[in-house]
Amino acid sequence: MHFSCSQKALMHSISIVQKGVSAKTTLPILKGIYIETNNEGLRLVGTDLEIGIEHVMEADVLQEGIVVVDARLFSEIIRKLPDAEVDITLKENNQLEIKCASTEFNILVYSPDEFPELPIVEEDQVYEIAQELFKGMIRQTVFATSQDESRPILTGVLMEIEENTLNMVALDGYRLALRKGKISGNSNHKVVVPAKTLNEVNRILNPDEEEPLHITLTNNHALFTAGKTKLISRLLEGEFINYKQILPKEHRSKVTIKGKEILNSIERASLLAKEGRNNLVRFVVNDEKMVITSNSELGKVHEEINIVLEGEDIEIAFNSKYFIDALKVIDDEEVCLEFTTNLSPGILKPLANENYTYLVLPVRLASN
Amino acid sequence: MHFSCSQKALMHSISIVQKGVSAKTTLPILKGIYIETNNEGLRLVGTDLEIGIEHVMEADVLQEGIVVVDARLFSEIIRKLPDAEVDITLKENNQLEIKCASTEFNILVYSPDEFPELPIVEEDQVYEIAQELFKGMIRQTVFATSQDESRPILTGVLMEIEENTLNMVALDGYRLALRKGKISGNSNHKVVVPAKTLNEVNRILNPDEEEPLHITLTNNHALFTAGKTKLISRLLEGEFINYKQILPKEHRSKVTIKGKEILNSIERASLLAKEGRNNLVRFVVNDEKMVITSNSELGKVHEEINIVLEGEDIEIAFNSKYFIDALKVIDDEEVCLEFTTNLSPGILKPLANENYTYLVLPVRLASN
Repeated sequence: MHFSCSQKALMHSISIVQKGVSAKTTLPILKGIYIETNNEGLRLVGTDLEIGIEHVMEADVLQEGIVVVDARLFSEIIRKLPDAEVDITLKENNQLEIKCASTEFNILVYSPDEFPELPIVEEDQVYEIAQELFKGMIRQTVFATSQDESRPILTGVLMEIEENTLNMVALDGYRLALRKGKISGNSNHKVVVPAKTLNEVNRILNPDEEEPLHITLTNNHALFTAGKTKLISRLLEGEFINYKQILPKEHRSKVTIKGKEILNSIERASLLAKEGRNNLVRFVVNDEKMVITSNSELGKVHEEINIVLEGEDIEIAFNSKYFIDALKVIDDEEVCLEFTTNLSPGILKPLANENYTYLVLPVRLASN
Repeated sequence: MHFSCSQKALMHSISIVQKGVSAKTTLPILKGIYIETNNEGLRLVGTDLEIGIEHVMEADVLQEGIVVVDARLFSEIIRKLPDAEVDITLKENNQLEIKCASTEFNILVYSPDEFPELPIVEEDQVYEIAQELFKGMIRQTVFATSQDESRPILTGVLMEIEENTLNMVALDGYRLALRKGKISGNSNHKVVVPAKTLNEVNRILNPDEEEPLHITLTNNHALFTAGKTKLISRLLEGEFINYKQILPKEHRSKVTIKGKEILNSIERASLLAKEGRNNLVRFVVNDEKMVITSNSELGKVHEEINIVLEGEDIEIAFNSKYFIDALKVIDDEEVCLEFTTNLSPGILKPLANENYTYLVLPVRLASN
């Protein structure tokens, strides 16, 4: 194998596939980046067996070949090279020679035979979705997945495609995030994608890129293609919770409020709440104002916010963390809160559009 | 106690004194910030008994008083408040009321009686030094102090003032950094200041500030005054090593080289060296070039740099870390290296000025 390319372009490619490489693994080969030269240039692959990332780039190929290099060492070396042409040759005895300006490295490489092949996903049915939109949908859902590995299905996000609408749903037993978006394609699908996968997909997305993300779904795998990068991931097995049943159909109180104001107030209240149990903050909705209070051994806090209330007054308590998480990912200026009783879930939505619904279970107060 | 001031100004003052507060302490009161109101405004103090930081700020004082607040909680609360006037009142039962816009906190505070007083340093003899200069002198020396607490004196920097020249010296048994600078004052002094103190002094310095830093030295304490901030620190006890004896008087080889080039080369070489023992890199100086090599089980690297050599060829090896540390803090474009034999210390200096001298012990090569 012998090729040359620019240091910057090679570094860019490495940084993409390196995210797929196992950080901790008992299989040494998985610490490597697989590099294949062919008549089109370079194909680089990193995988941890759950996720695989492949990227192709142009290069001046003088001799075809395959090699697996230690991802960390190789990326450190390439990063430190001057901004010039890099010339790479596979020598005898698994030695890789890396030349750039007046620098010459010779490093030991792995034999590529043991490197696992990525699963083959036939791209006969492809969905297309704007990169910026999908990035936003990941941001508004993935944080609500469960961290608890005892219910693996909840560590993923449901992707439900029906009639050119994509519903992404995450829930962890205490809150639920639902984001709707437009997707094009000629089929329907219902799969659960690991949160980790979506975080990695998020990295390869470019919100300024006009070319859409391509998604192909099979029974076991999802393939995401953004430009010259492909990310392939296993899906989670099992049935996702019937989330539509959980969403309340009606409410008795509807509060309209500035998103930034309620976020700041809850964050301040949580400074004391987080020292106590449950991160407990209490909302008292009354006419034209909402009072947010919290207390712990350290002291107490009292916040007042002007609101527009439609319906009944209510007093209800929540884990502040769940509200903060969602308020941070809603960019709309005004949001609304919908309540029924202080024992039934609260709903948070942007005021101006219907594409996002966030549900939180209340905390039962001792005085209830 | 009752005062009001702007949220931004209070946050600024807290962030200064908070650096003096103990992160880990068995004495709860040391987790606090001492706040005193008087007719001039506020005086805030944080101390861990080794270092004390005091800052004064203007405030609208309605009633004088003293309080000690938990530094972490108070700074988090003030940081999260809106950019508006903050009104603070000490109530009964050690409750501090903090009001800002429509937010009201009540937090428990410490009784100020147990808060340790800062040592009193008479400012009858004051040195003055430009803030930017002193900041640079700290940067070029403090990294070379020892991390080894078994020889406490080497964990500090010698400040030796003679005839309006300040020599700052740090050494750890493997390398030595000496920086000279101009200081004004009518006395001579020789003290050893803990590295931690100088790092904290560095934070209160503003390189764009025209008003000089004021330094007062006593037998046991150093007082640094920058504008409205005072930092007082214990000195280290004991005799510093006679560093002048260590500095070589002559050399046989003098290499002139671009600082950035040799830094980049050594950093690349150290990618492999750090996996082996000693971070070993080898310099081969020969006529018009210097070859830097390193090898470990992972592979080997070969770097060539153009140089100007005066004197003899030499082959010598060093711990790359010691060179990298110093090359990072020398901003001059060209540096020179001076060698005598491959068993005697190497010297690194800026080419164009005499204010900085850095010495490194070589590593004995197996082939020597």
